[in-house]
Amino acid sequence: MEPGFVEECMSILTRMPATLNALLGDLPDACTAATEGPGTWSPFVVIGHLIHAEKADWIPRLAIILEYGTSRPFEPFDREAQLRESVGKSLPALLREFADSRLDSIARLRAMHLTPEKLELKGMHPGLGIVTTRQLMATWAAHDLGHLLQISRVMARRYKQEVGPWAAYLSVMK
Amino acid sequence: MEPGFVEECMSILTRMPATLNALLGDLPDACTAATEGPGTWSPFVVIGHLIHAEKADWIPRLAIILEYGTSRPFEPFDREAQLRESVGKSLPALLREFADSRLDSIARLRAMHLTPEKLELKGMHPGLGIVTTRQLMATWAAHDLGHLLQISRVMARRYKQEVGPWAAYLSVMK
Repeated sequence: MEPGFVEECMSILTRMPATLNALLGDLPDACTAATEGPGTWSPFVVIGHLIHAEKADWIPRLAIILEYGTSRPFEPFDREAQLRESVGKSLPALLREFADSRLDSIARLRAMHLTPEKLELKGMHPGLGIVTTRQLMATWAAHDLGHLLQISRVMARRYKQEVGPWAAYLSVMK
Repeated sequence: MEPGFVEECMSILTRMPATLNALLGDLPDACTAATEGPGTWSPFVVIGHLIHAEKADWIPRLAIILEYGTSRPFEPFDREAQLRESVGKSLPALLREFADSRLDSIARLRAMHLTPEKLELKGMHPGLGIVTTRQLMATWAAHDLGHLLQISRVMARRYKQEVGPWAAYLSVMK
């Protein structure tokens, strides 16, 4: 994936707020609150999760690797924090909060100057063991895209009954 | 999914060009030409497919239902037309072409005034048999979202090796 691995990851990270705004901004609540069934996440919940990850996952973990290496394991990540933190907020407010947090993250990331040497530095994940800065950067970009996939899927599957016989041609419905 | 079924479909259709622009505009070719292996589609190919569907699928089929009902089957849709039609074009050019085609489709759709009665009208699909206007509208919206899902997945999977042990936590990599 060289050259420009960090730049390419940053290009994906930078475009996600505008992408999510274009996709979800001013959509009816019926779309943004829809889930795939009990215990699954709506687009609204996903945005809250992305905000929490900006605060508690990516940049904090990069900072730990750069400062402590493997000697200090990352804090475990709370995958359900948004179920508390998003209470009472509107989706437009969450989208703005995500855009602001991401902008802040990108500024911090630039200030870290991730050279090829720094990309190979190792950290200690509480569940996965040893990971590298480079793997963390790739995961951050892939995580964004995975949740964009999830939001698309949740929104598409609302039409599962409505599409009638066309469901046979739409792999998203399977 | 009432009330506002048509409005909700149109809300999704209307936002797709801006979403795809935000996601893909000015991305490096390495991202937009990536596939999931031989015979699978890159984001570039997907945009060409969406353009062809604007020209040959959604509005033309709606027009056939409204004018001929089940007496005239739809033309079969060429799922590979974009492999010819996109040759020599740039992704920014395709994104502009898609945005223009979609804008035109939305104008034609509004002019059709899809009342509840028209939504129940039937047409003849060459492979699936009898379908309704309503099912076609739902399929159009779901088709957009399914291809957004596909683009997200193709882009995420480029990082499959790069994410290292995190692949275990990323369902998109499975």
